[in-house]
Amino acid sequence: MKATARANVNIALIKYWGKRDEELILPTNNSLSLTLDGLYTTTTVHFENHLTKDVFYLNNEQIVGTAYKRVTSFLDIIRQKANKENLYAKVVSTNEVPTAAGFASSASGFAALAAASTRAIGLHLTDKELSRITRRGSGSACRSIYGGFAEWQMGSHPDGTDSYAVQIAPQNHWDLCVAAVILSANKKKLSSREGMRRTVETSPFFTGWTNSIPRDLKQIKSGILARDIEKVGEISEANCLKMHATMLGAKPPFTYWQDSTLAVMHKIQMMRKDGIPAYFTIDAGPNVKVIYEPEYEEEIRERLKHLSYVEEIICCRAGSGITYL
Amino acid sequence: MKATARANVNIALIKYWGKRDEELILPTNNSLSLTLDGLYTTTTVHFENHLTKDVFYLNNEQIVGTAYKRVTSFLDIIRQKANKENLYAKVVSTNEVPTAAGFASSASGFAALAAASTRAIGLHLTDKELSRITRRGSGSACRSIYGGFAEWQMGSHPDGTDSYAVQIAPQNHWDLCVAAVILSANKKKLSSREGMRRTVETSPFFTGWTNSIPRDLKQIKSGILARDIEKVGEISEANCLKMHATMLGAKPPFTYWQDSTLAVMHKIQMMRKDGIPAYFTIDAGPNVKVIYEPEYEEEIRERLKHLSYVEEIICCRAGSGITYL
Repeated sequence: MKATARANVNIALIKYWGKRDEELILPTNNSLSLTLDGLYTTTTVHFENHLTKDVFYLNNEQIVGTAYKRVTSFLDIIRQKANKENLYAKVVSTNEVPTAAGFASSASGFAALAAASTRAIGLHLTDKELSRITRRGSGSACRSIYGGFAEWQMGSHPDGTDSYAVQIAPQNHWDLCVAAVILSANKKKLSSREGMRRTVETSPFFTGWTNSIPRDLKQIKSGILARDIEKVGEISEANCLKMHATMLGAKPPFTYWQDSTLAVMHKIQMMRKDGIPAYFTIDAGPNVKVIYEPEYEEEIRERLKHLSYVEEIICCRAGSGITYL
Repeated sequence: MKATARANVNIALIKYWGKRDEELILPTNNSLSLTLDGLYTTTTVHFENHLTKDVFYLNNEQIVGTAYKRVTSFLDIIRQKANKENLYAKVVSTNEVPTAAGFASSASGFAALAAASTRAIGLHLTDKELSRITRRGSGSACRSIYGGFAEWQMGSHPDGTDSYAVQIAPQNHWDLCVAAVILSANKKKLSSREGMRRTVETSPFFTGWTNSIPRDLKQIKSGILARDIEKVGEISEANCLKMHATMLGAKPPFTYWQDSTLAVMHKIQMMRKDGIPAYFTIDAGPNVKVIYEPEYEEEIRERLKHLSYVEEIICCRAGSGITYL
């Protein structure tokens, strides 16, 4: 009744932005990501008969409150599926994702939790089944089940049975890199969850956003299969700009961008004028991620690291899916 | 056969962004502006029998090329209307709009030209008729015919007969102020005309933009009549953010924002947290315009003038419509 799993974070190139069902975490569009090496969560789940409730340790600290509640609610789903509704677990996690990096550690966290808990409780799941159940913990986590490139298919069933991720290409298909440019940041004012909700409910651009996704997806998948950095980069950049545009139309409007965010965006576009194939993507926060191929890493780092508002640059390669330790 | 007219620039609070007819300059949405005092063009038009073509002087320099062509094409429309197709004019303009201010001097320019040339050629036009014909020179110029607040009604006729501006409230209704915050700027890369065209043709957000206008207009008009700075400011700010959002969805995406643009936007939002009712609007360029009431001018200027990237701040009050000298 004990298992340990490790999962990496992923970075969406086609963004998940909008839920059609908040409870089941069903999205309003397909999304596509690259799983990244080196930024991961390792989680051990031990179901024990003597426990009367779940306990959760993260980085050697016992967690209570909202974060604890999210974990136990997720374990409730696992228990129900395994028909072991009175069996509680000790969950021990270590998170190797720097909080400031602007990567969603909830993605690696819930992917590792889902993998470890389903194995510990004796469920034998395919990757699709694991991805589907992982989705219930955190939407973007369902893509971290796979290495390399994964697409979360939104599905159409109201119960979410066809809403899970599939692999588009494994990590050894293409050594694509992502560098997180960490900016001196004010505290994030609006959670992605809240931002997403406000956008869906109030932005006149939301329909335009979802309508534009199928074409972006088709093009980026053909770009990934052809290892075409220009195509993949341009679509990633355009897709993230569209996501951020939807927020400017919300009531009240909001943005996660700081002036330094825009400065780095322009720097990256200027690099291209100098012949460096670098592209950006930005999640629901101020940091910018650069997309590039390995031979340009040195040059890109050089051009960004001296900027006064850049605190740190974390370079990542394509990473693997779930591993069991 | 000689007349002199003066026209002020105007700043759109509900933006003109999108044409449905490029030749007749018919917009895809109504827009609403405040005419500003002190930034104007003065133009003398003298039709003379001995001339064999138009001549155009701007700030004591004879103009040739594209700018000259725009003037003569506009005079062709005036001549046709007056049935005096072989009568040419000497046009002498002086422009009191600093080029860097980011105000469209084409608005004051074509409003003054339309007023002076129609009077010089002997046409007796109502304000609506003058506004309609001014539109053919430059769309936003049709609003500069009026003092105070003016709405350009897009109309529905394919020939543009019902596309002209009307006054919503005269300048003495409300002493609303606008400060242009001039930023150290790179040269503007894309003309508003080109930006508008690309947005109409390629942005998935364009329909959302036009659909959202009627509600913005209704609310801002009631805000103007009630002299409600909060309502007028919030709608102006939200409307300009929506306009800029449509560009982020274009193919390829583009923005007129610099990092300093975003920095000033955030500064203005922070002023509100400190109880200063200041709001922004941004046209198709990097500069930010602040909307406020006179008693806050000193404080707003103080908070912006020391910023390293602010080159100049030009404060304007509500201005009058066309005057004949």
